[in-house]
Amino acid sequence: MKDASPLVIPTYDDVIAAHDRIAPYIHRTPVLTSTYFNEMTGAELFFKCENFQKAGAFKVRGASNAVFGLPDDMLEKGVATHSSGNHALSLSYAAGRRGIPCHVVMPRTAPQAKKDAVRGYGGIIRECEPSTTSREAVFAEVQAETGADFVHPYNDPRVIAGQGTCSRELMEQVPGLDAVIAPIGGGGMISGTCLTLSNTAPGVEIYAAEPEQADDAYRSFKAGHIIADDAPNTIADGLKVPLKDLTWHFVSNHVTDILTASEDEIIDAMKQTWKRMKIVIEASCAVPLATILKNPDVFKGKRVGVIITGGNVDLDTLPWIK
Amino acid sequence: MKDASPLVIPTYDDVIAAHDRIAPYIHRTPVLTSTYFNEMTGAELFFKCENFQKAGAFKVRGASNAVFGLPDDMLEKGVATHSSGNHALSLSYAAGRRGIPCHVVMPRTAPQAKKDAVRGYGGIIRECEPSTTSREAVFAEVQAETGADFVHPYNDPRVIAGQGTCSRELMEQVPGLDAVIAPIGGGGMISGTCLTLSNTAPGVEIYAAEPEQADDAYRSFKAGHIIADDAPNTIADGLKVPLKDLTWHFVSNHVTDILTASEDEIIDAMKQTWKRMKIVIEASCAVPLATILKNPDVFKGKRVGVIITGGNVDLDTLPWIK
Repeated sequence: MKDASPLVIPTYDDVIAAHDRIAPYIHRTPVLTSTYFNEMTGAELFFKCENFQKAGAFKVRGASNAVFGLPDDMLEKGVATHSSGNHALSLSYAAGRRGIPCHVVMPRTAPQAKKDAVRGYGGIIRECEPSTTSREAVFAEVQAETGADFVHPYNDPRVIAGQGTCSRELMEQVPGLDAVIAPIGGGGMISGTCLTLSNTAPGVEIYAAEPEQADDAYRSFKAGHIIADDAPNTIADGLKVPLKDLTWHFVSNHVTDILTASEDEIIDAMKQTWKRMKIVIEASCAVPLATILKNPDVFKGKRVGVIITGGNVDLDTLPWIK
Repeated sequence: MKDASPLVIPTYDDVIAAHDRIAPYIHRTPVLTSTYFNEMTGAELFFKCENFQKAGAFKVRGASNAVFGLPDDMLEKGVATHSSGNHALSLSYAAGRRGIPCHVVMPRTAPQAKKDAVRGYGGIIRECEPSTTSREAVFAEVQAETGADFVHPYNDPRVIAGQGTCSRELMEQVPGLDAVIAPIGGGGMISGTCLTLSNTAPGVEIYAAEPEQADDAYRSFKAGHIIADDAPNTIADGLKVPLKDLTWHFVSNHVTDILTASEDEIIDAMKQTWKRMKIVIEASCAVPLATILKNPDVFKGKRVGVIITGGNVDLDTLPWIK
């Protein structure tokens, strides 16, 4: 049986409202450049550093928009979510700032650093198995017990409107961009990017970057309908989740192309970014650079915004140190 | 026999001239803040991120000032230096930009990443043993062979004037600082800081931070005369070198105090900075934060500029991963 509820598609007015609502709780993150990577790619790359964002990732934008837009009669029950990590962190941070409870279902295999950080912000964790099926089952229990408002990590109009504030800032910070590229997992950041750019700069190309080993968005895009994997395996742990109806709406209507990279290419791009740019980024947000290095002809001569989505890394287990 | 040549003390006019001269070749680096470290210390910390500087460290300021101020009749012979790493990198970078030769004496134990980077910029390396004595002996040979102009890594008025441009930017970027803290090895950055602040903001306190295991500057400061160690041992490999007459002039006249930290405290501050601020910094520039965390009463309630001096790290051998 199909879900009968109609899709609520956020508008660009929702992005503007979100930006006003969340401004006190987020950073306007800086944009960095790298002569090294420009020379290597023949493009002009502008890295929007959401790894410097509150709670260490862009997800705090959407999470804060949901939490601070919550009606008063929901405050006591609070919010709940399932997340591979950064959304959990961000929702816990935002809920803590508003003083409401936050319930989080996380895979037991999530990095210890992320679990510790969620608890550090006051989030209440319930563990599940590392598959989409298990995650959704455990979450249904939590929601039934608590009555908390479900803030989906990406398939939620409040979240997508919040993520759209990132490329809104980027367009203000860097004039004349030809393209923007961001990682794609469930598609929240890409959808927010599509929402903002299709309304304010419809000529700018939008690329999504995905691990080969979790390429459900790539295959969905080529097939013209959503294809979901259960339990894909990639170092880019933030990108394992599938597209949903709302993010598919934006991806299918506004994305220029989806590019993929192998695990080795992702790890190499991650290490090179640490080494050359002196910033700590997650494997997930090395995927765009990996695809740019792999497809120089697509980007050569263009001014490209690259969204660095997060920097929450377990520093004790780096993928290039065995 | 004492060196008969009188000390040439750079002036603040030299800093201004250096800034004009080197502006096309350096970054005006950003200043980052961290709510986490502010709450932890009770101070307001402003991190001047020279890890984002060209060639990965502040040293490019002094090196570029020397290289681009070199008279035409010296261009063919070029420049030469001895350095534990970042000065070598920076002088090679600047010489490359001007198209002149750069000879570098480096300890054979210097991180491979730094040797590779020096060669990548076109520097010509001659290796020495990891002691001040050996370094100076090998360097004398190189200088005799090549006739290149010696650009000392810190005991040179051109270099000190160049380093002074860093705190000049910091004072423009952050109004109302109460104190500035930087690591101290040979004292080039601290001397440049003293030169700028004593002329433009004499009320601002100047702290130097040093590893306990290479605390010759601390002991010199307390004794009132230069005390040098041969071959001290610390993870902060940029801070092993001793003060010299010119840097001693600034340290003894203008530094408020010198604070020290243990190896474990330095490594912990380094890792915490990576984890919380998402930036890659060298062990050497974790020493100031380590001393702030160790001496909260000195900094509590103050607005403190913290100079993050560099980010050239061998990512394959991190000190907290055994």
